Amino acid sequence: MPRTDFGFITPENLSLFTDLYELTMMQGYFEEGHNPDATFSLFFRELPPDRGYMIAAGLEQVLHYMETLSFGDRTIDFLAEHGFHDDFLDHLVTLEFTGEARAIPEGTAVFHDEPLLEVTAPIMEAQLLETIAINQISFGSLIATKAARMRDVVNRFGDGQALVDFGSRRAHGTDAGMKAARSSYIGGFTGTSNVAAGEVFDIPIFGTMAHSWIQSFETERMAYEAFVDAYGEESILLIDTYDTVQGARIARAVADEMGVDITGVRLDSGDLAALSKEVAPIVGDMDLFISSGMDEYKIKEFIEAGGIGNGFGPGTALVTSTDAPKVEGVYKLVAVERDGAMRPSMKLSKGKATLPGEKTVHRVFEDGRFDHDVIGQRHEDLPGEELLEPVFEGGDLVYEPPSLEAIKERTLETLRHVPERIRAIDKPDTYDVRVSDRLQAEVVELEADLEEQMLP
Amino acid sequence: MPRTDFGFITPENLSLFTDLYELTMMQGYFEEGHNPDATFSLFFRELPPDRGYMIAAGLEQVLHYMETLSFGDRTIDFLAEHGFHDDFLDHLVTLEFTGEARAIPEGTAVFHDEPLLEVTAPIMEAQLLETIAINQISFGSLIATKAARMRDVVNRFGDGQALVDFGSRRAHGTDAGMKAARSSYIGGFTGTSNVAAGEVFDIPIFGTMAHSWIQSFETERMAYEAFVDAYGEESILLIDTYDTVQGARIARAVADEMGVDITGVRLDSGDLAALSKEVAPIVGDMDLFISSGMDEYKIKEFIEAGGIGNGFGPGTALVTSTDAPKVEGVYKLVAVERDGAMRPSMKLSKGKATLPGEKTVHRVFEDGRFDHDVIGQRHEDLPGEELLEPVFEGGDLVYEPPSLEAIKERTLETLRHVPERIRAIDKPDTYDVRVSDRLQAEVVELEADLEEQMLP
Repeated sequence: MPRTDFGFITPENLSLFTDLYELTMMQGYFEEGHNPDATFSLFFRELPPDRGYMIAAGLEQVLHYMETLSFGDRTIDFLAEHGFHDDFLDHLVTLEFTGEARAIPEGTAVFHDEPLLEVTAPIMEAQLLETIAINQISFGSLIATKAARMRDVVNRFGDGQALVDFGSRRAHGTDAGMKAARSSYIGGFTGTSNVAAGEVFDIPIFGTMAHSWIQSFETERMAYEAFVDAYGEESILLIDTYDTVQGARIARAVADEMGVDITGVRLDSGDLAALSKEVAPIVGDMDLFISSGMDEYKIKEFIEAGGIGNGFGPGTALVTSTDAPKVEGVYKLVAVERDGAMRPSMKLSKGKATLPGEKTVHRVFEDGRFDHDVIGQRHEDLPGEELLEPVFEGGDLVYEPPSLEAIKERTLETLRHVPERIRAIDKPDTYDVRVSDRLQAEVVELEADLEEQMLP
Repeated sequence: MPRTDFGFITPENLSLFTDLYELTMMQGYFEEGHNPDATFSLFFRELPPDRGYMIAAGLEQVLHYMETLSFGDRTIDFLAEHGFHDDFLDHLVTLEFTGEARAIPEGTAVFHDEPLLEVTAPIMEAQLLETIAINQISFGSLIATKAARMRDVVNRFGDGQALVDFGSRRAHGTDAGMKAARSSYIGGFTGTSNVAAGEVFDIPIFGTMAHSWIQSFETERMAYEAFVDAYGEESILLIDTYDTVQGARIARAVADEMGVDITGVRLDSGDLAALSKEVAPIVGDMDLFISSGMDEYKIKEFIEAGGIGNGFGPGTALVTSTDAPKVEGVYKLVAVERDGAMRPSMKLSKGKATLPGEKTVHRVFEDGRFDHDVIGQRHEDLPGEELLEPVFEGGDLVYEPPSLEAIKERTLETLRHVPERIRAIDKPDTYDVRVSDRLQAEVVELEADLEEQMLP
């Protein structure tokens, strides 16, 4: 046994990745004999600053949780020590997800208030999903969106350059590193430097060399020679350890003297656009890879300044979505069974009211672009294309999660249909999301009922 | 086998949580017969905006990685498929950490350029640690710092109220949820809502109830009655689902009618300071717990506005450190063995130069407060208290990781010694970090050598 602890989340303790109150409420529902069917809806109340759209991501991880949900010995033992009651724990051992769920597929553009996931199940089951569902879908979507903005910038303003996630070291922990690799790929990236993400998700992996390689040899030239000796044409040489322009000259000389047609060089500091223009004629047909502080704003500036780059390696700004590091996903009860029928429900909390009932989202196109969306009641007849698809029925997964390649294609297709004013990376317009007349009428009616009920 | 994938990092694939270039360089070092001892130093080039100090955290996770480092079948198979060579992989199977390391203990205040971890080992081993070491220590320290700022605010301006991490759902993935719970506890929090963090790290766990509990019953009163029936005095009732003041009245009435001395109520929306003052006389001796958007700034405003709260539940702002979501930890080669001796090394990259050689950090006190720190050469005789402690020697862990309780004590003790102008949550002064004369002279000498070497 190691004397230290990493704090892994594995299949053995995943079901404990939840807020204590979910389990407290579940025991309460159980002991009060109150386990009605309930519908919960997961949505973003508002999009982060400067985000005109979000790309949905992280659904597969939530489906995995639902598909494999179980409480094993380790989790039960802990809950018993923590004072949960035996009869409840006996029930928890048998718990699995038996309900239904609908979701908007990953790679779809979504907007404020639109349900990305709606779960209908006995409330004990549906309640438990809250923490993990928000966690995976909020972060997944945050990074898929950040990546899509970069992909959109290089496609519109550049030459569709390669984009590689270099961010794992600066991600908020290991899961963020893994999911940022996955989400950035979904968002249109070419690959990641994270080897574990390559192994788990089959994402293409890329890498060059670090300054330490250079420094570990007596001279920069010896470092390049050794690397080219080991890797030949695949070599990408880092040229900014001492002096970028001089580094480029040495890289060129080494390639010529060794007679190897090496892939390229990487620039990692200084005025990258200016240096790239200075370096390009020196290195000739080698590719230029640009890293250090890259994001959609910096890439656009680089391109506008005439910088020459065949690929970019965004890191910190990508994996932390630094300019907008949060999206407040919520998972709210919107309907509950009473006297055998599902009744819409809402809360009135100031600034945090919710749209009641099971819902649908329809997207209406005009001239090949998204024109507006309508959020309506689930079975309402509305124009446009329905976005939510069944993912669970009767406790069974009825959805074949697409490959990441297919999700990425969906994202790229999506981006082509988002109006430019919504795709702007600075101060985008707000997309037109409407609430159907019937749903609006229901809100008014429920508000009146609740206010009446609250009269002293 | 589930049809879906979560993307876990477990002991089986942890060694692949690295950037591809680390493994590429390792194979290059191996094949070029170039495996000198090297020293790498992990530090923050600068502190995030509005951070006068950082609280070091995340070291134990890195020590765990070093202690358990291994490449098992699953990792080797993947690397073989990916084109790594058999002779290198045969070597990788036998790889373990054989070097030495020194570190600043968790719970210590650290400042820009100060090495939190220095690793000296054959370069193949030392190189590999980069990604995971930066990942765990940067995020760990980011959140411990954010938490310490809140603890400091409630201790200085409030009554030392309880602080509970409610952020797991908004953390960047599961590991961020786990490590935010750990780091916020280190930073002075009372506990977390994350059950898995309670199980893994033995952190106290807390919870109340969600709006869904209320909405699942026909009336708010029935919801309170059912909860108090199940949980008695432990109950903390959420009162803002429909109308906060009315909710408080109902909570009071239910407690009185059922004759139960319930713990408290939770406010989660609206003007929290104003509502708390309105609600306090209604609920009488019940405690008030305040959530929704809490961070050090909001807590200070709440207290300054005369708000009444016995505890706060920061969430998103804590776990994403929203106002400063990144700290750019780096892990740089600072010395390398040549001709049998360790030679200091540095790079000159514009804006990213490094301090060469193995180092020490000494902290000098005046009037019981930190006055300044001095970064010097490792064996230099300097005034003040040395911060780095041995953690690995000859490949063996020689450090007993303290309990989280002990680390938290260290943080609280630390905070008492940080000057107030450095502890300010807005625009703190920059702490005085000096470079010793000898280290400064070495920088100048190495710069001259490198510039000479770079002459065309």
